[in-house]
Amino acid sequence: MLSPEAERTAAVGVSKLPQTMLALVKDAPGPGASLREIPVPEPGPSEVLVRVEAASVCGTDLHIERWDPWAEENFGPLPMTFGHEMAGTVVARGQGATRVALGALVAAETHLVDWTCYQCRTGRAHICRSLRILGVHAPGTFAQYAVIPETNAWVTEGLGPEVAALQEPMGNAVHACFVEEIAGQTVAVLGCGPIGLMAVAVAQMAGARRVIATDVNPERLAMARRLGAHEALDAHDDVAGRLRELTDGDGVDVVLEMSGSEAALHQGLAAITNGGRVSLLGTHAAPATIDLSEEIIFKGLRIYGITGRRLFETWYRTTALLEEGLDLSPIITHRLPLAQYEKAFTLVAEGHAGKVVLLPQQG
Amino acid sequence: MLSPEAERTAAVGVSKLPQTMLALVKDAPGPGASLREIPVPEPGPSEVLVRVEAASVCGTDLHIERWDPWAEENFGPLPMTFGHEMAGTVVARGQGATRVALGALVAAETHLVDWTCYQCRTGRAHICRSLRILGVHAPGTFAQYAVIPETNAWVTEGLGPEVAALQEPMGNAVHACFVEEIAGQTVAVLGCGPIGLMAVAVAQMAGARRVIATDVNPERLAMARRLGAHEALDAHDDVAGRLRELTDGDGVDVVLEMSGSEAALHQGLAAITNGGRVSLLGTHAAPATIDLSEEIIFKGLRIYGITGRRLFETWYRTTALLEEGLDLSPIITHRLPLAQYEKAFTLVAEGHAGKVVLLPQQG
Amino acid sequence: MLSPEAERTAAVGVSKLPQTMLALVKDAPGPGASLREIPVPEPGPSEVLVRVEAASVCGTDLHIERWDPWAEENFGPLPMTFGHEMAGTVVARGQGATRVALGALVAAETHLVDWTCYQCRTGRAHICRSLRILGVHAPGTFAQYAVIPETNAWVTEGLGPEVAALQEPMGNAVHACFVEEIAGQTVAVLGCGPIGLMAVAVAQMAGARRVIATDVNPERLAMARRLGAHEALDAHDDVAGRLRELTDGDGVDVVLEMSGSEAALHQGLAAITNGGRVSLLGTHAAPATIDLSEEIIFKGLRIYGITGRRLFETWYRTTALLEEGLDLSPIITHRLPLAQYEKAFTLVAEGHAGKVVLLPQQG
Amino acid sequence: MLSPEAERTAAVGVSKLPQTMLALVKDAPGPGASLREIPVPEPGPSEVLVRVEAASVCGTDLHIERWDPWAEENFGPLPMTFGHEMAGTVVARGQGATRVALGALVAAETHLVDWTCYQCRTGRAHICRSLRILGVHAPGTFAQYAVIPETNAWVTEGLGPEVAALQEPMGNAVHACFVEEIAGQTVAVLGCGPIGLMAVAVAQMAGARRVIATDVNPERLAMARRLGAHEALDAHDDVAGRLRELTDGDGVDVVLEMSGSEAALHQGLAAITNGGRVSLLGTHAAPATIDLSEEIIFKGLRIYGITGRRLFETWYRTTALLEEGLDLSPIITHRLPLAQYEKAFTLVAEGHAGKVVLLPQQG
Repeated sequence: MLSPEAERTAAVGVSKLPQTMLALVKDAPGPGASLREIPVPEPGPSEVLVRVEAASVCGTDLHIERWDPWAEENFGPLPMTFGHEMAGTVVARGQGATRVALGALVAAETHLVDWTCYQCRTGRAHICRSLRILGVHAPGTFAQYAVIPETNAWVTEGLGPEVAALQEPMGNAVHACFVEEIAGQTVAVLGCGPIGLMAVAVAQMAGARRVIATDVNPERLAMARRLGAHEALDAHDDVAGRLRELTDGDGVDVVLEMSGSEAALHQGLAAITNGGRVSLLGTHAAPATIDLSEEIIFKGLRIYGITGRRLFETWYRTTALLEEGLDLSPIITHRLPLAQYEKAFTLVAEGHAGKVVLLPQQG
Repeated sequence: MLSPEAERTAAVGVSKLPQTMLALVKDAPGPGASLREIPVPEPGPSEVLVRVEAASVCGTDLHIERWDPWAEENFGPLPMTFGHEMAGTVVARGQGATRVALGALVAAETHLVDWTCYQCRTGRAHICRSLRILGVHAPGTFAQYAVIPETNAWVTEGLGPEVAALQEPMGNAVHACFVEEIAGQTVAVLGCGPIGLMAVAVAQMAGARRVIATDVNPERLAMARRLGAHEALDAHDDVAGRLRELTDGDGVDVVLEMSGSEAALHQGLAAITNGGRVSLLGTHAAPATIDLSEEIIFKGLRIYGITGRRLFETWYRTTALLEEGLDLSPIITHRLPLAQYEKAFTLVAEGHAGKVVLLPQQG
Repeated sequence: MLSPEAERTAAVGVSKLPQTMLALVKDAPGPGASLREIPVPEPGPSEVLVRVEAASVCGTDLHIERWDPWAEENFGPLPMTFGHEMAGTVVARGQGATRVALGALVAAETHLVDWTCYQCRTGRAHICRSLRILGVHAPGTFAQYAVIPETNAWVTEGLGPEVAALQEPMGNAVHACFVEEIAGQTVAVLGCGPIGLMAVAVAQMAGARRVIATDVNPERLAMARRLGAHEALDAHDDVAGRLRELTDGDGVDVVLEMSGSEAALHQGLAAITNGGRVSLLGTHAAPATIDLSEEIIFKGLRIYGITGRRLFETWYRTTALLEEGLDLSPIITHRLPLAQYEKAFTLVAEGHAGKVVLLPQQG
Repeated sequence: MLSPEAERTAAVGVSKLPQTMLALVKDAPGPGASLREIPVPEPGPSEVLVRVEAASVCGTDLHIERWDPWAEENFGPLPMTFGHEMAGTVVARGQGATRVALGALVAAETHLVDWTCYQCRTGRAHICRSLRILGVHAPGTFAQYAVIPETNAWVTEGLGPEVAALQEPMGNAVHACFVEEIAGQTVAVLGCGPIGLMAVAVAQMAGARRVIATDVNPERLAMARRLGAHEALDAHDDVAGRLRELTDGDGVDVVLEMSGSEAALHQGLAAITNGGRVSLLGTHAAPATIDLSEEIIFKGLRIYGITGRRLFETWYRTTALLEEGLDLSPIITHRLPLAQYEKAFTLVAEGHAGKVVLLPQQG
């Protein structure tokens, strides 16, 4: 086996890898971030070094940049690069990392797991007891290079790096959709942020009988329609009433809660048919007040807490849906060099963007 | 086919059925109930008339007797007999009711369903869109005779009427246990009322790795131990901490929430392992405040709202467990003639009883 | 309630229902059938009388017409009308039949079940212990009128009678597809008779990653391509090798065996990935010789015997897929009056047809 | 980290590990085996060295010793130690093996998998595309020391080594039982070799309604009764008829085929209720002839091919059942030093033994 150094040389041809790179670093508690020149990291045993071609912005990144209480409690140790959604080229491999070829385009599964706990040993690694998240608990991908465990590198063929990077959030949508069968079911997608929009496209492609999206933002509702929603409803309206109407009074079979809004959740619980199922994915900033008897128990519902992606069932399915022709490109509204990160965060914060993708190799 | 009148004659031998019977009737809004002499009802098409041998008291009956807001909204029309858990002998059959033999001992499935709605046509009749409940929306079983749809009559062999009557609430426990596999799992049963106690016995018999019960009532905890709980914890203590200890920090696999207490639910959500499942059965009088992100989503939980019994998978399984030797008799702490209904309600209200069974044929 | 006679009058307006009708009758053991004038049947309790608008021909009908050993053992009693796939208008209702409106277009669920056995009481009515099949054990639908239980009448809106009639065989395909999730899976459909072709369309619409069809008949392979198959392979070729190639050596996830050919089954078992699933639907005329260890056990397969349709989950899903736009019309290659039944059987026997639909109201 | 050599020293205290050991080796094609003195193996990266305390004999070992066609095709390369069921003490760890403590008692998961193929990445590692089996494709455990991947070492507490070694075959039984819910179900166990006997005990402990065992060997039937079978039937009798009788004509819900006998399989398929499920685990030496239509399709059965154990759900469940008190000791009928291997094989071959355990540390 070549030494990592030798492999790095091989990987990048005549030119060696650089010693330093640009990275977006959270230096200190408080809002903001800094673009810095820092050393290119070395892959350790069973790790790979990836040249980041595309790194998309997630709401979590905004929480870190803005330094909200969640970030304060979870992010670090400081200073650290953040960002986690990404695709790039494998340019070096640590000892024992032999599965993924040098030069392969890979996306990152961002849940870093221990593979030894009860969850990891029973097919539930995405909720590992010692879960760490790339760009939250370990250096992230808003950088020109990033190190990830080889196991977390998902080899991708036939997709460009921008769409490849979106497999991670799309995997959330796929996970939420497919905890039960969705073909032939009537589906309400509550919240049309990027993952909600992806869920619309996924449910539609998987043969849902009808997909109805809701949001408070008309631009997002328009995007939902473009991605295949049969109806897109303003969440200020009588959503439950309208969903009942559209289903001859039966209610919807499936609620995909992607908004993190308590109001949306109550609309979904009011509109769901007895015996239906709810996937909860949107992060709730505050506790919700729920009438468990009337809203869940007497209706015989099944509620699924959804986080991350099943390793790696979800990735296989996500890739399959993209291969079948699911088109994420309408969701990507902006592409920016890494240096324009402030503009990227503003776009995400203001809600006028679909997905914003940073391109670290463009500086 | 014999006329119902002829069948009645045949069923009771030389003596005809009486014209009137004792029944516990809710006459008017407000607390209380009256023991009255009312006509023995006639079975309509596809119905059977049952001589009630045993009718056990459920918490719901207490709500009706006390006339709480739920009862006010749901019970009636007044005046009407209440009570729903029961077993008795089929003594007459309406037109078209030919499956169940005269003389058979039957228990009552108490969910009266339309068999024509979306739920009923897709294997979910227990959450029928037009659900009515015996003794709540239709005359009940605290009476010497009661009419039920033949479909709802569960023929029972090899059990006495008292235990036979308990198949209905035990079915709730069975339903809650078996929405997923329970053998080899660590199970917390929160709340040791009669259904919680039954859940302890069911989980234990079905090969649960360990069953831990909680309650605030030491008498009930003692009963839980007698029914097979490996541990019985005072709910005032650090339940979550103790459950973590008992599971090497992993947490329990299964939470059966039988108490309707929000505090208990939070204990369960704190103690459950990532990826575990919760059956919610206890009725909550008030909305609960839940941190959906931390308590459900990031843990990847599955939450099941449980009401009634699956028609009739749950009944087959319930009968099977009783045949295998599951012993409910420790749960029956009191047997009283119907006339002592006030004592029965007091016993239930004060929490010193397990299950109280009324015996209408003893007057 | 009106008498059936009064209802009949109401249903057809000024003109009364006729006293007699044309029906295709099997009179006696042996090949052939006779078009006869026989009385229009009366609906009994809980039954409806349907004016048959379209009755499609199934392979089973050919077995009856040709009088093979299976028919000899199962069909009757003679003389009896045969045929079972159909759609038509409800023109009269027997006592107690009130769910389905007069004038409604209905398709027939053809499994006549007792609703009281273990299977029927546990959500498996399609494999009722006392199963009888319309047109095999009870008078069928190759006639101008037919009686079916009201429960078996599936009300259909927005479809013409020809496609409505095809919901029954399409339900077989839907049942076979959806015993497990199919979105994102690689699917081999073995056998492109009408149900196989429908399975191609269903799997494609439900988001299968890739659908590969096989048959020995080039016309059918061409139809499979038109219905959305990504590849259509001559079953004489090295099907297993080709399926391995198409899946990077992994093999297919799902095999839908629709041919009843032992050779096809072995191809499927050779081509399936470890841990995949097989739906067996094609009827096998002779026992098959299977290396259980190598073909099933060591591969960790799941094999599903598929017959009929789940009552009524499959019908809901089937209707949903048709509403979403699944187009069965390419499968209907011939429409003929009932009197041309011999031509219909010849077309089916020779394998040059997709689905042949008889139109009894055209004589 | 210590070098493996240093760790070995630490592990065994003052005395070093020996350089050589006794091992049962297959030297050459053909019947027989040789007890040899060979070097103690070194654990490679991510491997552990185990001092074998107990190694039980499986039917597979007999095939290897007798050198049947299966062995000829699969075993090797020669010369190689065989045997796979075992428990022992971890005495050295290779580089990177840090999860399992030195001195821990471990049992061996015998499926050696690549963790990188489609199956391994989707929760089905037990049917890894590159599956190798300990003692078949890699040196085995009929030796004083054996090397296994650390991942395959199942840490066991509270069990002696003999029972600990039996977790592997018991895992087969657990896997076969729990592919679907078994509580409340009527179960037929066909074949009472050691795994069949374990299945009897497992099903009984998991709340099966009734467990009926069959075999041709009266000694084994007697053992089945001791392990909790409600009935034990001579397989020469009318098993299907008797099973129908015992179930009021409905048939059994679950068939666990543990015999590898085609005759037994047909009995099971004749006795199973419509919609029941069959776990196929017994290895069939010859292809079986099955009437797919009548025996599987029209009955709506589900057939599961069972091999190995789910990694590691099955192990958790197996351990849990042992902790709950499932008692395997009646199955262990013989304990012998490794040198008496010929006697061990004869006992297994003659069918008078339950499980025979070799004790390599006794020489």
